[in-house]
Amino acid sequence: MNITIWNENRHENKNPEVAKVYPKGIHGALAEFLEEEANVVRTATLDEPEHGLTEEVLNDTDVLLWWGHIAHDEVEDAIVTRIQDRVLDGMGLIVLHSGHLSKIFRTLMGTGCDLKWREADERERLWVVEPGHPITEGIGEYIEMPKEEMYGEHFDIPAPDELVFISWFEGGEVFRSGATFTRGRGKVFYFRPGHETYPTYYNKDIQTVIKNAVRWSAPKNTPVPVYGNARPLEAISSKDTEGKN
Amino acid sequence: MNITIWNENRHENKNPEVAKVYPKGIHGALAEFLEEEANVVRTATLDEPEHGLTEEVLNDTDVLLWWGHIAHDEVEDAIVTRIQDRVLDGMGLIVLHSGHLSKIFRTLMGTGCDLKWREADERERLWVVEPGHPITEGIGEYIEMPKEEMYGEHFDIPAPDELVFISWFEGGEVFRSGATFTRGRGKVFYFRPGHETYPTYYNKDIQTVIKNAVRWSAPKNTPVPVYGNARPLEAISSKDTEGKN
Amino acid sequence: MNITIWNENRHENKNPEVAKVYPKGIHGALAEFLEEEANVVRTATLDEPEHGLTEEVLNDTDVLLWWGHIAHDEVEDAIVTRIQDRVLDGMGLIVLHSGHLSKIFRTLMGTGCDLKWREADERERLWVVEPGHPITEGIGEYIEMPKEEMYGEHFDIPAPDELVFISWFEGGEVFRSGATFTRGRGKVFYFRPGHETYPTYYNKDIQTVIKNAVRWSAPKNTPVPVYGNARPLEAISSKDTEGKN
Amino acid sequence: MNITIWNENRHENKNPEVAKVYPKGIHGALAEFLEEEANVVRTATLDEPEHGLTEEVLNDTDVLLWWGHIAHDEVEDAIVTRIQDRVLDGMGLIVLHSGHLSKIFRTLMGTGCDLKWREADERERLWVVEPGHPITEGIGEYIEMPKEEMYGEHFDIPAPDELVFISWFEGGEVFRSGATFTRGRGKVFYFRPGHETYPTYYNKDIQTVIKNAVRWSAPKNTPVPVYGNARPLEAISSKDTEGKN
Repeated sequence: MNITIWNENRHENKNPEVAKVYPKGIHGALAEFLEEEANVVRTATLDEPEHGLTEEVLNDTDVLLWWGHIAHDEVEDAIVTRIQDRVLDGMGLIVLHSGHLSKIFRTLMGTGCDLKWREADERERLWVVEPGHPITEGIGEYIEMPKEEMYGEHFDIPAPDELVFISWFEGGEVFRSGATFTRGRGKVFYFRPGHETYPTYYNKDIQTVIKNAVRWSAPKNTPVPVYGNARPLEAISSKDTEGKN
Repeated sequence: MNITIWNENRHENKNPEVAKVYPKGIHGALAEFLEEEANVVRTATLDEPEHGLTEEVLNDTDVLLWWGHIAHDEVEDAIVTRIQDRVLDGMGLIVLHSGHLSKIFRTLMGTGCDLKWREADERERLWVVEPGHPITEGIGEYIEMPKEEMYGEHFDIPAPDELVFISWFEGGEVFRSGATFTRGRGKVFYFRPGHETYPTYYNKDIQTVIKNAVRWSAPKNTPVPVYGNARPLEAISSKDTEGKN
Repeated sequence: MNITIWNENRHENKNPEVAKVYPKGIHGALAEFLEEEANVVRTATLDEPEHGLTEEVLNDTDVLLWWGHIAHDEVEDAIVTRIQDRVLDGMGLIVLHSGHLSKIFRTLMGTGCDLKWREADERERLWVVEPGHPITEGIGEYIEMPKEEMYGEHFDIPAPDELVFISWFEGGEVFRSGATFTRGRGKVFYFRPGHETYPTYYNKDIQTVIKNAVRWSAPKNTPVPVYGNARPLEAISSKDTEGKN
Repeated sequence: MNITIWNENRHENKNPEVAKVYPKGIHGALAEFLEEEANVVRTATLDEPEHGLTEEVLNDTDVLLWWGHIAHDEVEDAIVTRIQDRVLDGMGLIVLHSGHLSKIFRTLMGTGCDLKWREADERERLWVVEPGHPITEGIGEYIEMPKEEMYGEHFDIPAPDELVFISWFEGGEVFRSGATFTRGRGKVFYFRPGHETYPTYYNKDIQTVIKNAVRWSAPKNTPVPVYGNARPLEAISSKDTEGKN
């Protein structure tokens, strides 16, 4: 499977605290464990030409991961449309953490995708609410993160097709933190954890979920819809039987 | 209730056949039966300033109906965003027939919203598949239209929150022809029938469905979410209990 | 509207602590605030003949509320089937708190409906996650209960049609605490709060939600499906055109 | 993967017309193509002891297929409960055609599962409405059956988690003919075609869908929920802070 990991890659370059947690960038940390599964993993970042997401790269991508935060606006609209087209055509998309406000996620959702947030080193517990879902394979009843940023409801998304995780936060909020959406022939998974100052993506359970989501969202050889003017498949008799109606 | 009916109003001015069916415009026909219910009904059309959808008009609108077809591209993006914001804030939206390719519907869906189509004077039968839904109040098991344009699957929308009608077409296709979606605090109903050359909006069952949809999608005094940075509602102890984790 | 409130009514008779909180029974407390809205409110309890739910009573009931806990097994199967039939035919059903393990709820869900629980006088906060839903009319972003029993995920229900509330509990769990389901022409709302030793049903927000749910689940004059052998609505030509296929 | 195909196996023994189409029984025809995929395939029929579905057999079954029609009532309730428990615990279940009225399907749905029907040798066309779904891998935009029994809406099921196919029938009806449901940790797929007098299960597309559904519904190593009394994961302070509330 061909995976492309997109990372804004700004925090890592500006904030030594982040660089210390993720010396190879968040994309580097994601790539490391995804490569364990015999995937072909490519990375792409905001400051590359076309943000590293040329037609060629996207056409060769089965699943795209997205991490962005402080520079959503710098992503060009034309590239967003290109990604959207690929998702509608079947490419999987996994949107991580602060990617909830990315142009591509908001475009695919049709809503504002806003939420409550707080940085307070608080405990998060992600409860599995759909325990037969393939994305939960290999984990327990919940995942506990000792310190994470809080995201709280209301999360302004359409009702997910499947709600997989709900988070509990120490400060008193809850959040729909693992949610699936189908758009066209493509599968989208939003997964909440991953604030840049915490070592979240080194957590084995978090890695398991992301690996599962990659497999779950990979495109299959499913029907390609044909749109536009269509000839009838059956005889149309209404002109001859007008009296009937 | 304050209702605004938006119509592109181009067919009516260019095509005598359409003008004959809808001498007051499609918006006029819709207004006529919606006024029966003691609603305050306003109409707006593409060629008015701001397409007739000023901030003032939209802020005073509980439910917006939308009919467009050949000039979707002429609707200004800024107005589309304005409508989207109002929907997310609670305004109901009823998208009719060829409005499936309107900017506002595609924006709220996040998908291409394309489909198969055919103009062949064929019979359509809209079957109720959610017979407890308030939108079906007062009609029978199905609505039969002697002649309509065909719309066929695949219809490129997200899975609806509720699927209310499925259409059968004489030429061999099916279509999800009545579907609800929630976006933010707003309710959206897509309703398929209404090709401009047929007297569809004079059909009593079609009128009943649209009246029901208006009532169903009207905003209520529901909670207004607060987004952004949030103070904790509970004491956060993790800093002090680091050892625990 | 005709409302029937069903209560097991055993705790009230056995446990002075409960009798002190609900001197007129839980059904009495529910009836009191539902009568404020010009509804015709009837109560029924386990130990009445046919549990107070005769054919006549049910046929005259628009919305049935259900509170039970320690005697689910004593409800006769024939009465459960009678209630199920009425729900499929359009009667609204509101299942409260420990009613999650009632025969009628389990029958309508098709699952075990089990969950985690704890009685520890802990704080519950019910967050609104569908802020346009009519059931949330008139309340704020969340409802806070100072002391309630904990119910925790996994809650073994089918994915709700609409998820309206998610609860946060002090002890670390979350719960899908307000959820809607459609069964046949009937609407079902499960609402979590209401442990018998706490004055939950005197809380104004809880009352508002229950009042809203009653209105939302009330039957309407929607189509009555016809089942069984059906004559064709269109000519069937396949016998004559066998060669075609 | 271990597959068990359950067939009522009465038509085959009573009706020479059916025996001619399915000389090895419907279960035999299903087994034949499922064995192509290196599955371990077992069959079981109504008239075997415990209907061939002992604890041992079910515990060793990953996916169960179900075909029944004229003897639903002869299936023992205890066996139905046994199957339900296994589904809730993760076993896949594929319910075929007239299995819609089987005890196990009705139990898992919570509704009547009734529908319209007609035997008239008419054409059916199953349209794909979820073209990214793994169950549609390897087929085209629709499957056409030259002659099938008609099943028409309203189909009295809960709204499916995913609607994969909608059927068009020559006589004027539509039907939700491929639908998924999650119950507990188990996945359920209802697939409409397969009247006993037609060679439906020899159709390659139908076989592809059933093979896909078997893979899709197979259990995975997902979390096993723990139910019942639960100790708190966090300190509960409400007793000490009563004044706060």
